[in-house]
Amino acid sequence: MAAVQDTDMSDLAIASRAVLAPISRIAEAAGIPDAALEPYGKYKAKIDPALLPSGTQRGKVVLVSGMSPTPAGEGKSTMVVGLADALAATGTKTMIALREPSVGPSFGMKGGATGGGQSQVLPMDEINLHFTGDFHAITSANNLLMAMLDNHLQQGNALGIDPRSITFKRVLDMNDRALRHVVIGLGGTANGVPRETGFEITAASEVMAVFCLATGLADLRARLGRITVGYTYAKAPVTADDLGAAGAMALLLKEAIKPNLVQSIGGTPALIHGGPFANIAHGCNSAIATNTARALADVVVTEAGFGTDLGAEKFMDIKARYAGCPPDTVVIVATVRALKMHGSVPKEELGTENVEAVRAGLPNLERHASIIAKFGIKPVIGINRFTTDTDAELEAVTSWAEQQGIACAVADVWGHGGAGATELAATVLRAIEEPGNFAPLYELEQPVEDKILALVREIYGGEGVEYSAKARRMLQQINGNGWSHLPVCIAKTQYSFSDDPQLLGAASGFTVQVRELIPKTGAGFIVAITGALTTMPGLPKVPAAVHMDVDEQGNAIGLS
Amino acid sequence: MAAVQDTDMSDLAIASRAVLAPISRIAEAAGIPDAALEPYGKYKAKIDPALLPSGTQRGKVVLVSGMSPTPAGEGKSTMVVGLADALAATGTKTMIALREPSVGPSFGMKGGATGGGQSQVLPMDEINLHFTGDFHAITSANNLLMAMLDNHLQQGNALGIDPRSITFKRVLDMNDRALRHVVIGLGGTANGVPRETGFEITAASEVMAVFCLATGLADLRARLGRITVGYTYAKAPVTADDLGAAGAMALLLKEAIKPNLVQSIGGTPALIHGGPFANIAHGCNSAIATNTARALADVVVTEAGFGTDLGAEKFMDIKARYAGCPPDTVVIVATVRALKMHGSVPKEELGTENVEAVRAGLPNLERHASIIAKFGIKPVIGINRFTTDTDAELEAVTSWAEQQGIACAVADVWGHGGAGATELAATVLRAIEEPGNFAPLYELEQPVEDKILALVREIYGGEGVEYSAKARRMLQQINGNGWSHLPVCIAKTQYSFSDDPQLLGAASGFTVQVRELIPKTGAGFIVAITGALTTMPGLPKVPAAVHMDVDEQGNAIGLS
Repeated sequence: MAAVQDTDMSDLAIASRAVLAPISRIAEAAGIPDAALEPYGKYKAKIDPALLPSGTQRGKVVLVSGMSPTPAGEGKSTMVVGLADALAATGTKTMIALREPSVGPSFGMKGGATGGGQSQVLPMDEINLHFTGDFHAITSANNLLMAMLDNHLQQGNALGIDPRSITFKRVLDMNDRALRHVVIGLGGTANGVPRETGFEITAASEVMAVFCLATGLADLRARLGRITVGYTYAKAPVTADDLGAAGAMALLLKEAIKPNLVQSIGGTPALIHGGPFANIAHGCNSAIATNTARALADVVVTEAGFGTDLGAEKFMDIKARYAGCPPDTVVIVATVRALKMHGSVPKEELGTENVEAVRAGLPNLERHASIIAKFGIKPVIGINRFTTDTDAELEAVTSWAEQQGIACAVADVWGHGGAGATELAATVLRAIEEPGNFAPLYELEQPVEDKILALVREIYGGEGVEYSAKARRMLQQINGNGWSHLPVCIAKTQYSFSDDPQLLGAASGFTVQVRELIPKTGAGFIVAITGALTTMPGLPKVPAAVHMDVDEQGNAIGLS
Repeated sequence: MAAVQDTDMSDLAIASRAVLAPISRIAEAAGIPDAALEPYGKYKAKIDPALLPSGTQRGKVVLVSGMSPTPAGEGKSTMVVGLADALAATGTKTMIALREPSVGPSFGMKGGATGGGQSQVLPMDEINLHFTGDFHAITSANNLLMAMLDNHLQQGNALGIDPRSITFKRVLDMNDRALRHVVIGLGGTANGVPRETGFEITAASEVMAVFCLATGLADLRARLGRITVGYTYAKAPVTADDLGAAGAMALLLKEAIKPNLVQSIGGTPALIHGGPFANIAHGCNSAIATNTARALADVVVTEAGFGTDLGAEKFMDIKARYAGCPPDTVVIVATVRALKMHGSVPKEELGTENVEAVRAGLPNLERHASIIAKFGIKPVIGINRFTTDTDAELEAVTSWAEQQGIACAVADVWGHGGAGATELAATVLRAIEEPGNFAPLYELEQPVEDKILALVREIYGGEGVEYSAKARRMLQQINGNGWSHLPVCIAKTQYSFSDDPQLLGAASGFTVQVRELIPKTGAGFIVAITGALTTMPGLPKVPAAVHMDVDEQGNAIGLS
């Protein structure tokens, strides 16, 4: 979510006034040969990684994560863009790698995911709408698998699939709560086999997670084939390959899997590709985009969803493992407002100076820094300055960081773009000079329960884990099917280290409740669900869509 | 459907070997300035009509229609492409305007809709898959309207919508019969208001019909707003504008509404845009594409779905009326195989010479020619030659046409592309030299029943119309709501002039049963449903998707 700041100009207005370079010029400057460039309009293009010059270049990875977020938003994407512009301004060959926004939520309440203010990737309206159609291709591939599954039931069910055991669902990129729980196949024998199911939002599809972890077309095809859709009456898993669907799914994704090139307001090339949920999936842009950016630039600035306990942990234990792209440093985005919330200031009073509350919130930030250190990486704290922050409040953070020996810099990327992140860029460049000592938190061979316990104790600061009866049954099934070697992806509230969203600051001593364990055998991880989880959002009473329109020249109105 | 011929090479193989010109070169030759060109990859582009040179150029319209089709397919799209290539070869500035294929059916049985053999538009695989994303944008706009409608019910239903009266449905571009009849909104108060509904395929969406009849962005926005989604408890219609959804829907369509430029194997520029059903909608490419092509070329070759009784009639009574693009001639595509089927030869024996059966089928073709004449237009019969046709069979048709005084030529567009349609092109050029005397069949002010009776008597050759009790109630509602001035769009079997698909040849004396009347107030017509109608196809026992895949270079396998 683009962090909202007080201003006369909306992000859309700022974006509309920016002067963009033709995408061929951006590509040329990034070292992308014309043969590899597939333009989508004048300012977007897909890049075919197979047609890039082969070489050994592997740029360093700067991962932007954050402290435990607040509903106001900390501006991580904005920081990615501003920091990258600042790095590029030093003469460092820099590339941005970000997730694609989901269009559904923009019709509800959520703003776009293209940064904000002077630190945006452009063209903002097109990226936030259909962009190059990747989400649509993923929706189609997901729903083809489901149409083929229900057709298999209709045509005699030769595989003996138990319709009550089907776990895979259809998806739409839409906030549509009325589709959460549905009964399909009604209307008599010509119209399918009746069963209970539901729809999820496209970002929550396992096809999206597969898309984002695949390292190439062959890996994509293989992962799609391994997706488990349900079980037979004999409890054997049924995969997309069993249904003969994975080839056609890969065909639907063959263009989408190429990363999308755009530019920041500052002219830095950006690959925006893939957008999985950060709870039931790993929450980062595609592995192909990250590795393509590394092949082209010396420094790649990328982002992981939510705080270090969720996004950064998953980046390191899931994505870096599969895609071979460990971070060289992690920037922890902090805001004075979030520190004050973790220091117990109610949302309405965040605009008032309160140095004590800032200090009271620092343990949350400290915990995030220590999480990064556990992976053998030195963090950098990047304070995203808001217009309401006072010098005394900012000083409280920077002097604390100095005492702790943690690199830290204040940046005003919203107001000034790259020019507002000069000091942060210098700090980041120093941090990535030192060779890192990266190691994931756990070994894949450990039992699933040990991996979860390691995450709860070492990352979240909790004491133990309790499993529901359902989770225990699922654990047995996972072990019995030979899936226990997969990494774990924990779906947990982003607002607290614990599984209780009300427990702010640096909670400790708690027990995490695992309600369900869901094997995602295509993506290649096991989701552990703690607390409530919605995979299909709803619209609010007055949806943002009500204020959207086009003017007579075809310009967007009301996007944010 | 691409008509299947005996050959060693599939359409995909022929398409893959064709050498394409860069789309910028095709655009330049077509007189499209660079500013109006938005490339989508190297061989596809969107054209912004607002950025074309303004002028008074209005190219002539050659509408390709057909005799009553048979399950084998008569190759209308193939004829459009071959004829256009032949016209271009005479030095005539020619442009093709065709519908976009729906991707869903290609995973079932149906082949693509990009022509066949040497008469194809390219890149075949991309056009048949996501193309430039127009179908996806239409799916999103349709489903946003539905999400906002169900959200309205959930948030208190201020408009007083009767959930049992909602006629609008969600759509997917997928053959998915299990979604025909569903119950949504289950799972308790947080998850919507339970109600019965269903999904249709995207091509059947009223948003698609709106998209294809809109003459510009403002007209699109206005038509979207007029879509009726259902009725209040007080029986008043509820529109997309009442829900505040039409602006955001237009925003989702603002790029899609620009026509797509591609090329034929022969290098003729082609606008491929919009793809509505030919039964519950009017079955032609977008009005914007037709009029853009007319502004650029001297002759535009375009197509209407099914036979003259359906597609051509709707082109003239609906599309030409709204978009101001009456045809200058209509080419009626005929095949020896179809004539034999109408002459009572079973499908298995169509490969055997049978001149008598050809003659016995001619009354069907004669009826189609007379239908075109009723609109003040002189038809041209174009015989699409198949490899199994004998000279004696072809001669039986051409000599009959000469006796009747109907222009006629044989073309082998599948095997030879434009070179196979030289004589047909010359015949068409002669036909469009004479000024036409076009008039639609009925006046809008006539009562709905009179319009339907005029169609049944003058076009279908029937005697009368019977209305079901339901259709009578709907007629009252249509008259009461002031919608009786809309043109009529009849959903009828394409295989017969009557509403009985078994009644081949030139049926007459029958009565047409109208089961339902559905007002499409956004598109601007009233659908009269006769016989059974499926708006969501299913997959066969072994879907074509099972044989699809990508190779290691990312090439499509198994598309047809």
